[in-house]
Amino acid sequence: MKRENLAVLGLGLIGGSIAASARARDAVSSVIGWDPNPEACAIALARGYVDAIELTLGDAVANASLVVAACPVPQVVSLLREVVTEAHPGTLLTDVASTKLSIFEGMQIEMPEGVEYLGSHPLAGSEKSGPSHADANLLENRVVAICPGPNTKAESVGRLEKFWQSLGARVVSSPAERHDILLSLTSHLPHLLAYLLAAMPNREHSPYLAGGFRDMTRLAGSSPHLWMGIFQDNRTELLARAMEFRSKLDEAIASLEQTGDVGGVLKKQMEEGWKMRTSWQAL
Amino acid sequence: MKRENLAVLGLGLIGGSIAASARARDAVSSVIGWDPNPEACAIALARGYVDAIELTLGDAVANASLVVAACPVPQVVSLLREVVTEAHPGTLLTDVASTKLSIFEGMQIEMPEGVEYLGSHPLAGSEKSGPSHADANLLENRVVAICPGPNTKAESVGRLEKFWQSLGARVVSSPAERHDILLSLTSHLPHLLAYLLAAMPNREHSPYLAGGFRDMTRLAGSSPHLWMGIFQDNRTELLARAMEFRSKLDEAIASLEQTGDVGGVLKKQMEEGWKMRTSWQAL
Repeated sequence: MKRENLAVLGLGLIGGSIAASARARDAVSSVIGWDPNPEACAIALARGYVDAIELTLGDAVANASLVVAACPVPQVVSLLREVVTEAHPGTLLTDVASTKLSIFEGMQIEMPEGVEYLGSHPLAGSEKSGPSHADANLLENRVVAICPGPNTKAESVGRLEKFWQSLGARVVSSPAERHDILLSLTSHLPHLLAYLLAAMPNREHSPYLAGGFRDMTRLAGSSPHLWMGIFQDNRTELLARAMEFRSKLDEAIASLEQTGDVGGVLKKQMEEGWKMRTSWQAL
Repeated sequence: MKRENLAVLGLGLIGGSIAASARARDAVSSVIGWDPNPEACAIALARGYVDAIELTLGDAVANASLVVAACPVPQVVSLLREVVTEAHPGTLLTDVASTKLSIFEGMQIEMPEGVEYLGSHPLAGSEKSGPSHADANLLENRVVAICPGPNTKAESVGRLEKFWQSLGARVVSSPAERHDILLSLTSHLPHLLAYLLAAMPNREHSPYLAGGFRDMTRLAGSSPHLWMGIFQDNRTELLARAMEFRSKLDEAIASLEQTGDVGGVLKKQMEEGWKMRTSWQAL
């Protein structure tokens, strides 16, 4: 398999980390970077995340065989559609957004011969953002989800898997719709709960905030703007998960309301949570 | 100030860590251990957490000037009341339970001359438990809350503060009732949410559980039995916090239900959570 020429569009935390990792591991033949923000370009170039910066999208993808769009969810489709017109045969397009269905649907357009889109989602974010927090080891031992459609070529799946694996990641695969359903529970709901919890303490609570509260609200340090885009995109599934969580909370509340029954429903819920939590070897 | 003779009653994670830390830092004159479980005694002795193990409570506290009851919430009062009858003048009794009001009230009994109870709560637990997870540095840079009452002697407050500080902790103080109100938000509610969330995924979600979910459910690895005792003891306040959280969740759900309004209430909640989270220097 010949080595990829990589173009990374968007040099924030994720894009910068992917570029840096690809170079550090010599995983590709070359890394071209592009970002609408000149400061991000300067940082990426100065820190050696990329071989070169190009100022236009066309130049950035002109020689690329693999294009990674690393921008917020709402911008992925318009960016990749622009790239499609500039890409040459054999170019594989992917993205790193946290939701996959709307992007998959948005990319069901007429493509030039040999150009293909196949979505990715590295489960390796951070509450930090920006190229100065990029980390060449960000994907090491992390999971990257990819979302082939019914017409995706097996060769393209193989190429994309190989690329992510070469950055140290493990690849899992599911249709985009399924991906968004699963992630609404494993990622989007936890973010929502963290934002809500983090807003509750006031000044008087400060001395009593310890490790538990810190862990439970770390995700609330993530950019609200970025996550608003994710919540909006996966609104229906997130809503369903939030309502499922509310049902469980209602049960716990009802159990707490009955003095004598604290040991009933709530106890079962706690034991179930503990059992699930302690059985996840991977965590 | 003369050095304390320390008795630690209960040699689990917290009791074992306190004993180990006091010895490792040479913070006290001697450390006597007691635990109803012979295996915990054997581990504490073998690992050098204590100078000696005593088999009866009476022997354990016979020469103690400072007694730390490190057992689950529901057992603290009965254990300390038993100790009271054995303690000699000048003995200061404390505990390390996560709730303080019911214990404070339970200790408003006639005490022998010069014997006093003053509650403590080290905000330094772990989802692990048992003496084999004890750590002599557990309290380093952590907070210990103490809860003086209207009749607590200033000298006793000073002694207890000095003891916790000698183990590397920072001491904060509030009345027991206030403590339980504050902790219901900063610790008990997060535990409840973690248990509920941890129970939600099934086998299909496993590959998609990453760092965010891990952090959001770490607390669900805490002993349900231990935490059931804490929830029951602080039931009224936990219930109030759970209902406050439900109101916030209801608002978020209503916002998600209105397609066009996702950017309204929910956006404000997220920005508020982010602002609070990123302003806590200590976390």
